Amino acid sequence: MDLYQKDVVSIMDFSKDDIEGILDMAEEMVPYAKGEKIKRSLDGKILGNLFFEPSTRTKLSFESAAYRLGCDVIDVSEMSMTSMAKGETLADTIKIVDAYCDVTVLRHPYEGASKMAAKFSDHPVINAGDGAGSHPTQTLLDLFTMRQAKGSLDGLNIALVGDLKYGRTVHSLAQGLTKYGMKISLVSPETLKMPDEIVQHLTENGCSPRIRTLEDAVAEADVLYVTRIQRERFPDPSEYQKVAGVYRIDNALLQNAKDDLIVMHPLPRVNEIAPEVDKTHHAKYFQQAANGVPVRMAILNAILGGEM
Amino acid sequence: MDLYQKDVVSIMDFSKDDIEGILDMAEEMVPYAKGEKIKRSLDGKILGNLFFEPSTRTKLSFESAAYRLGCDVIDVSEMSMTSMAKGETLADTIKIVDAYCDVTVLRHPYEGASKMAAKFSDHPVINAGDGAGSHPTQTLLDLFTMRQAKGSLDGLNIALVGDLKYGRTVHSLAQGLTKYGMKISLVSPETLKMPDEIVQHLTENGCSPRIRTLEDAVAEADVLYVTRIQRERFPDPSEYQKVAGVYRIDNALLQNAKDDLIVMHPLPRVNEIAPEVDKTHHAKYFQQAANGVPVRMAILNAILGGEM
Amino acid sequence: MDLYQKDVVSIMDFSKDDIEGILDMAEEMVPYAKGEKIKRSLDGKILGNLFFEPSTRTKLSFESAAYRLGCDVIDVSEMSMTSMAKGETLADTIKIVDAYCDVTVLRHPYEGASKMAAKFSDHPVINAGDGAGSHPTQTLLDLFTMRQAKGSLDGLNIALVGDLKYGRTVHSLAQGLTKYGMKISLVSPETLKMPDEIVQHLTENGCSPRIRTLEDAVAEADVLYVTRIQRERFPDPSEYQKVAGVYRIDNALLQNAKDDLIVMHPLPRVNEIAPEVDKTHHAKYFQQAANGVPVRMAILNAILGGEM
Repeated sequence: MDLYQKDVVSIMDFSKDDIEGILDMAEEMVPYAKGEKIKRSLDGKILGNLFFEPSTRTKLSFESAAYRLGCDVIDVSEMSMTSMAKGETLADTIKIVDAYCDVTVLRHPYEGASKMAAKFSDHPVINAGDGAGSHPTQTLLDLFTMRQAKGSLDGLNIALVGDLKYGRTVHSLAQGLTKYGMKISLVSPETLKMPDEIVQHLTENGCSPRIRTLEDAVAEADVLYVTRIQRERFPDPSEYQKVAGVYRIDNALLQNAKDDLIVMHPLPRVNEIAPEVDKTHHAKYFQQAANGVPVRMAILNAILGGEM
Repeated sequence: MDLYQKDVVSIMDFSKDDIEGILDMAEEMVPYAKGEKIKRSLDGKILGNLFFEPSTRTKLSFESAAYRLGCDVIDVSEMSMTSMAKGETLADTIKIVDAYCDVTVLRHPYEGASKMAAKFSDHPVINAGDGAGSHPTQTLLDLFTMRQAKGSLDGLNIALVGDLKYGRTVHSLAQGLTKYGMKISLVSPETLKMPDEIVQHLTENGCSPRIRTLEDAVAEADVLYVTRIQRERFPDPSEYQKVAGVYRIDNALLQNAKDDLIVMHPLPRVNEIAPEVDKTHHAKYFQQAANGVPVRMAILNAILGGEM
Repeated sequence: MDLYQKDVVSIMDFSKDDIEGILDMAEEMVPYAKGEKIKRSLDGKILGNLFFEPSTRTKLSFESAAYRLGCDVIDVSEMSMTSMAKGETLADTIKIVDAYCDVTVLRHPYEGASKMAAKFSDHPVINAGDGAGSHPTQTLLDLFTMRQAKGSLDGLNIALVGDLKYGRTVHSLAQGLTKYGMKISLVSPETLKMPDEIVQHLTENGCSPRIRTLEDAVAEADVLYVTRIQRERFPDPSEYQKVAGVYRIDNALLQNAKDDLIVMHPLPRVNEIAPEVDKTHHAKYFQQAANGVPVRMAILNAILGGEM
């Protein structure tokens, strides 16, 4: 797949071959991402970070990825606020950012914002999360982390745990998993279960998910993908406490896991994973966060036409 | 004019020849501004963006301009807030920024702030708007946009439309227009009309402006320069609605315009220009915003002694 | 001392020889810090500025220092706020920043935060002030400023003036002074006097401090180190006014000073030093602020392994 000057709006726009190609490029980027080797393939380019929602982790790893390739970064998030306050349309804001930068990275609360932005931009737009659905670069770094640990993604048994209702990360990831025919288990409180349309999408694509208890899921899984259960989702604090206590990963729980189970989390975590897990060989969530840099380097380099 | 190590405080400090020289340099910068060619003439230099008022458009285009030349940027606007809160004088703040950077770009609510800053700085200061009067780099990019479209600026018929009372952009621009003997029409609500001292300045410099209706101005103009009428200027919302409805540019209104009329706006716009105008060949406001980059590149390069 | 990949947590970790070595390197950095010469020894590296407290002066001079060496900068301070709000631990935040950068510069309200951060980071951590005690890079630039003016630091007579209770700068500096056997005078309101544990540390290290009036201290001192007395430390505004009036340096007071007395201040100042002093040859506080750049360049270059 030739990504040159292409938009990155949804993981659904990529075939399995496309994804594998990006992950291969990301693999090559690792020593540059760590600063062990220097690459200036995007020298003179400018990336515009346009975040209408706070998402420092994604924003900063794009920034780090750009710098590792010699690309400069403009943070236009402040403009997003002041322009909206003055009544400017998203289309106008996008056009201005497009005039100052070679690529726009957009985070927006409304679904479809990235698609619209891509329409109004001459330069490529990368969706860094819009609405409840799409976050393609997060999905790519999640898949990269699994492939790095497992060698291959085909047919892995993965359990998605925690808040499956609001978490854009798991929705986007679920769409990616179908490309690899993964066995998907869903583990969540009833009030935070996976939306019907995503379950339907999984089923239609041959990955009909199973509802599991945490214990059963842990026993079977190759990958445990844990998400944060947000306190503010629960009107009643005691209700939150109960749920947060049940969906917590600790070493006792992992006793029954496969030896090569990996535990992932998009971070930040609060109580979902006990700190004692960090020191086990299961823990891959910090590696996963670090992987944001090489994966986004690969995407930026391909889109902006940097040499490999 | 040799701009090396010079301050840029007011458009009045520049002769017509100076302005033409800067616009010529800006023209050469265009392919670099677009990222089509790479220029690193200011490699190792640092620009300090010191904004005491939010003005993301100006700030970001200075940032983009700097990066396109290899110059780094420090955003010292946060310092402006915390230092003021602690009771530091502007003079002290300026001296510190001056110690960390090679050039300071200053936006300040008070007229004369840039002149004072220039006095306290060893390095050059660029006025990015101070008080209600001066915004020389905006005026230069406005003139650049007109010259780009028209070939020459001499004797153009220009209508200034909207809020002519508070808009620093039009005040600064009006001063620039006199250098080219332009025919100036003023179109505004009575409560937002051009201040007497600027009308007097125009008259004394041979460009006595005429008060026009929007319809008459549109029929005669080569350039329609529209500004935003801010809701907060009107204590009575219904009064705002009435005015905003009257001073609105749409395709019906432009039926009577010259075929080569260009419509400009410093942006952001709200309702002053209908989106349908965007697709006409009259619309130059997005081009105008984009022109902020090559024009500011030319200024920075000249001030900091970069090779052309 | 080989600083390569070392943390910079406390000035107490450095021997006198270490300090002299850093100051020598800083001296070499001066022409690069001023932009007179270009150095790209840290090209491709990334510094993460993680400030849990506003401290723009320190943050910006680290930024300027990094850029002067070709090192990019990510401001992760916003992340510090949003992650804390979501309940993330400092350890987790540190690990993420560590994954995106080659060195973390940390400002934190709690004493010991830097030491803890260093434990959780693979890359080096530089303490940019934690709690009331440590601010080693400020101390190094203070010592650099004195050595620059005096030639040698040994046995200088220094008066610490103003808020000696809360000022982290003077606490950290006091610890550095003992390495040079300085004669230390303390001048402060009773309510803002130097904490007992620091007086004890000075005494144990052969620099038993003397309590002095401002007049006596000025007459004897080689260095007058003045700090800001913060209005908010005084519940009663009239009490603040009285104190602020007494501990104010002006030209009349300096009549009795040695001819080569230097006056220093970490800035921002409010009323502690009259502006008339700025023009005297005693005033070194703006030079001191500027010295933040070459000193921090020396530290960054040594830690990240840049060529000299």
